[in-house]
Amino acid sequence: MDTPITAKALPDALIERFSAIVGAANALTEADRIAPYIREERDLFAGSTRLVLRPGTVDEVSAIMALAQETGTPIVPQGGNTGLVGAQSPRSEAEVVLSLSRLDRIRDVDPAGRTMVVEAGVVLQRAQEAAAEAGLLFPLSLGSEGSCEIGGNLASNAGGTNVLAYGNARELCLGIEAVLPGGEIFHGLRRLKKDNRGYDLKDLLIGSEGTLAIITAAVLKLFPRPAGREVAYVGLPSPEAALGLLKLAEGRAGGQLTAFELMPRIGMEFTIRHTQGARDPLAGPHAWYVLMEISSGRSAEDARETMEHILEAAFEDGTVEDAAIAQSLSDAADFWRMREEMSWAQKPEGGSIKHDVSVPVALVPQFLAEAGAAVEAAMPGARIVSFGHMGDGNIHYNISQPVGADREAFLARWGEMNTIVHGIVADLGGSFSAEHGIGQLKRAELARTKAGLEMGLMHGIKQVFDPKGIMNPGKLL
Amino acid sequence: MDTPITAKALPDALIERFSAIVGAANALTEADRIAPYIREERDLFAGSTRLVLRPGTVDEVSAIMALAQETGTPIVPQGGNTGLVGAQSPRSEAEVVLSLSRLDRIRDVDPAGRTMVVEAGVVLQRAQEAAAEAGLLFPLSLGSEGSCEIGGNLASNAGGTNVLAYGNARELCLGIEAVLPGGEIFHGLRRLKKDNRGYDLKDLLIGSEGTLAIITAAVLKLFPRPAGREVAYVGLPSPEAALGLLKLAEGRAGGQLTAFELMPRIGMEFTIRHTQGARDPLAGPHAWYVLMEISSGRSAEDARETMEHILEAAFEDGTVEDAAIAQSLSDAADFWRMREEMSWAQKPEGGSIKHDVSVPVALVPQFLAEAGAAVEAAMPGARIVSFGHMGDGNIHYNISQPVGADREAFLARWGEMNTIVHGIVADLGGSFSAEHGIGQLKRAELARTKAGLEMGLMHGIKQVFDPKGIMNPGKLL
Repeated sequence: MDTPITAKALPDALIERFSAIVGAANALTEADRIAPYIREERDLFAGSTRLVLRPGTVDEVSAIMALAQETGTPIVPQGGNTGLVGAQSPRSEAEVVLSLSRLDRIRDVDPAGRTMVVEAGVVLQRAQEAAAEAGLLFPLSLGSEGSCEIGGNLASNAGGTNVLAYGNARELCLGIEAVLPGGEIFHGLRRLKKDNRGYDLKDLLIGSEGTLAIITAAVLKLFPRPAGREVAYVGLPSPEAALGLLKLAEGRAGGQLTAFELMPRIGMEFTIRHTQGARDPLAGPHAWYVLMEISSGRSAEDARETMEHILEAAFEDGTVEDAAIAQSLSDAADFWRMREEMSWAQKPEGGSIKHDVSVPVALVPQFLAEAGAAVEAAMPGARIVSFGHMGDGNIHYNISQPVGADREAFLARWGEMNTIVHGIVADLGGSFSAEHGIGQLKRAELARTKAGLEMGLMHGIKQVFDPKGIMNPGKLL
Repeated sequence: MDTPITAKALPDALIERFSAIVGAANALTEADRIAPYIREERDLFAGSTRLVLRPGTVDEVSAIMALAQETGTPIVPQGGNTGLVGAQSPRSEAEVVLSLSRLDRIRDVDPAGRTMVVEAGVVLQRAQEAAAEAGLLFPLSLGSEGSCEIGGNLASNAGGTNVLAYGNARELCLGIEAVLPGGEIFHGLRRLKKDNRGYDLKDLLIGSEGTLAIITAAVLKLFPRPAGREVAYVGLPSPEAALGLLKLAEGRAGGQLTAFELMPRIGMEFTIRHTQGARDPLAGPHAWYVLMEISSGRSAEDARETMEHILEAAFEDGTVEDAAIAQSLSDAADFWRMREEMSWAQKPEGGSIKHDVSVPVALVPQFLAEAGAAVEAAMPGARIVSFGHMGDGNIHYNISQPVGADREAFLARWGEMNTIVHGIVADLGGSFSAEHGIGQLKRAELARTKAGLEMGLMHGIKQVFDPKGIMNPGKLL
C-alpha cells in the first residue's frame, strides 16, 4: 500500500476557503514566509506547499480539518519543525501545512496535583520554565528544546537525555486533546494516574506522527525538583567499562541516576575542533567518555556523596580511567555542552550517515563492536561517531565520511550503511528507530521489516481514524 | 451496538474438534471440573459454558483461535479468574473458556538487562519470586497475587499497591506476545526502553480485556530490590490531613514512597471484627488511617531515617495524631494485613455496593466529602468503607448495608448508588473504573458515559482486530 504524492497543487479557491478560517495574517502563501516551514535541519527533505495555516484556537483547527476532510485535502501538522525524519515536511503543493505554533497557551499549572495543561505549540523550554516557576520539574529534555514544541514531542514520542529516570514523552503525559480528521475534538485531558475505561487511545495517538489526529493540548506530569544535582565527566577504556559503570551507578543511585550519556573520543575531537570555547574536561585522551548525572531529592551534599561513592568504587575496580566532577553550575553547563554540541560538530567534517538505534542495554558493547567491524570492513576510514543515551540502550550511530572522501559519493552509500547497521541491530533484538520516529526517512524500511501482521493492524487503525487518508500522508505508513 | 448472548450451545462436534487440539485431559466438559472457571469471587456473574480448554503451548492457542475464527465460536480468555468485573466469565453455553493457566513457563530472567520473559499463566507471586531469586524486584502487587496471573494482569492493566512508585501493569511491561483471533501470532517480545517504530500496539492490547487478542507472554521490567523498607501505620483526623501527609512524604521521599494507602475507621472496625488475630496498631481510635511505606535503595537505616523525618514533621505541624513504625518484619506484615483484609472483612457485614474510582489526587478529600454527604442523604445509615490507593487518587468506595437492612433490597439499589457516586467522580474529572476494568459490570455505563467519538474509535479498532467478534464478546464494548 503506497501513498503517491498528489500531483495537483492546491487550487486558489481552496486556499481562500482555508485562509478565511484563520484570517489572512495567519494564512501564509508567499514563498519567503513559507520557506521556514518547508526547510528542515538536515536538508534531507526539500518540501513544498502553497499554504501554511497558523490557527490560533482549537476550534480553528477543527474547522480546518472539517474542510480538509470535505475536500480531501492532505494536511501536514507541524510543531517546531525540528523533527529528524521528515514527518513534518509537506511533500507537494497539494498539501497544506498546519502549524500549531500559535496554540501556545499554558492553560493550567496545578502544583498540588503535579500536572500542567499546555497547548501543542508551547515550546518545550517554556514548558520546563513554567514547571520551574511552580517549584516543579518537567523532565523532558532534548537538544532542540529551545524550539521544538510539545505537540511535536508527543506526536513523535520524543526521548532525550532524561528518559533513564523519567521515561519517554509518552510516559510523561496523562491525557491529550486532539482534533480528528473530520474536525471532531477528542476530549481526553485527563489528570488521572489510574483510568481503566477501555482501549488506550492516548498512547495510540502519542507517537503516531500526525497520521491519525492532531494533538492540540496535553496534561503533562510534573515532578519534584531535585534539591541537588551533580554532573561528572568520565574517561573509560571501552563500552564494556561504561556498561560496568552504568550497573554500578544504577545499583547505588537507583532512580537518582538521571543521565548516562556515552561518547567516543572522535566525537570529543569533533566537538572541540568546531565548537567555540569547548574544552576537554579531562587531562588526557580516553577511548570513551560518559557524562553521568545524579539528582538527589534531599540535598546537594547527598547528590555529591552519591556521585563520589560511585566514582570511588569505579576507580577501585578499574572501571574508569579518569573523572571530573563539575565544581560549579558553569562547569556542569560546559560538560553538557560537550554532549549537546556533538550533534552539530559532525557537520563541518563532511557528510554524515545517521542512525538512531536501540538495543537491550546490556548489548550496547556487543552492538558497537559488531557494527564497528562491519562498517570499517565495508568502508575503510569511515569515522564512527556513536554517542547517545546508553542508559536507555539508545545510540546515535553516525558515520562521518572518511577524510578527503567525496561527500556525494559517500552519502550515496546511505542505504548500504543502513542495511549493515540495522541488520546488526535486528539480530540483537533492537530497533532502527529508537526516538526519532519513522516519518519519510524510514518509511520504506518500516514497511519492509515490520511483520506483515503488525503493518496490517496499523493500516487498519489508520483507516479507522482517517478513512480519507488526509492526515500526513506518506509518513510512517 | 449491542452484543447479544448467542443462544445456541456449542455443538458436540465442535467440542470434539477443539478438544483434539489440546487433548482430552485438557478439554474440560464435566460440570464439576468446569465449575471453578465459571464461578467468580463476588458471585455477581453466574456464567456457563460447555467447554474449558487448557492449551499448553502458544501453538495450541493459535490452533484454537484459528478454529474459533473459522467456526465463529466466541472465546473467553481466562487467567487466574480473580477479575472483579466479570471480564473472565463465559456468558452462555455457546462460549468456550480458554484458560491460559498451563502456559506457565518463566522463559527467561535477564538480570543484566533487568527484564524477565514470562508466559501468561504465570501466577503473579511466582513472577515476584523469580525476580527475587535473581536479586531483583517485580513490583506489581495485588491482594490476589497468590492466584492472579500475568496475562490477566496485563489484559486488565492491573494496579495495586505499588503503582505510586512503579506504575500500573502497562508501565511494567516492555513487550508482549499475543495470539490474534485468526490464530496469527503477534511477536512483540521486545526488551527495548525506546522503540519508535509505528503505532503503540502493545499498549493497545494491554487493558483491552481479551477483546482484541490473547496475550500469551510478556517482557516485564525488573527493578533493584530496596535495601531497606519501613512501614508505618498513621492515625489522622481527616482525608485533608492524609493529603497533607502525602505531600510531605512525596516531598521528602520522592520515588522512595512506595505505598500510601488510606483507610477509614469503620474499615478498621470491620477488619478487626472479622479477621482472626487482627489488631489495631494504634492505641486509640482515629477517624482515618494511612499505611505508608518507604523503600530505600541504600540501607535499612536510610529508610528508617526518612520515615522518621516525615513523621516528625507531620507531628510538628499537627497533620497526624498518632503513628506506629513497624519494629519487625512481622509487624510490617500485620500492618499490611489490616489493609489487605479490609476487602474481605466487608462480606460478613452484609451486602456491599462497590466502586473502584479515581480522581486527581488533590481532589480525594473533596470527593470523599461530597460522596459521603450524597450517599448518607440517599440512604441514611449506609456504612461507607472508602479505602485504597490514595497516592494514585484511587479509592475503593464501597458501601455496606445499614445495620439490620434487608440484603436484597439494599443490593437492588446498586445502580442508584453508582449513579450518585459516579456522578460526583465525573464532575471531578475522575474515572468510574480506576483499576478493575469494565468487563460486564460497567459495560453499559461505559457505553452511556464515554464520548460517542471515543466509543466509535474503540468499536472501529475492535473491528480491525476481531472482525468476526469472537474475542470475549459482551465485555468492555
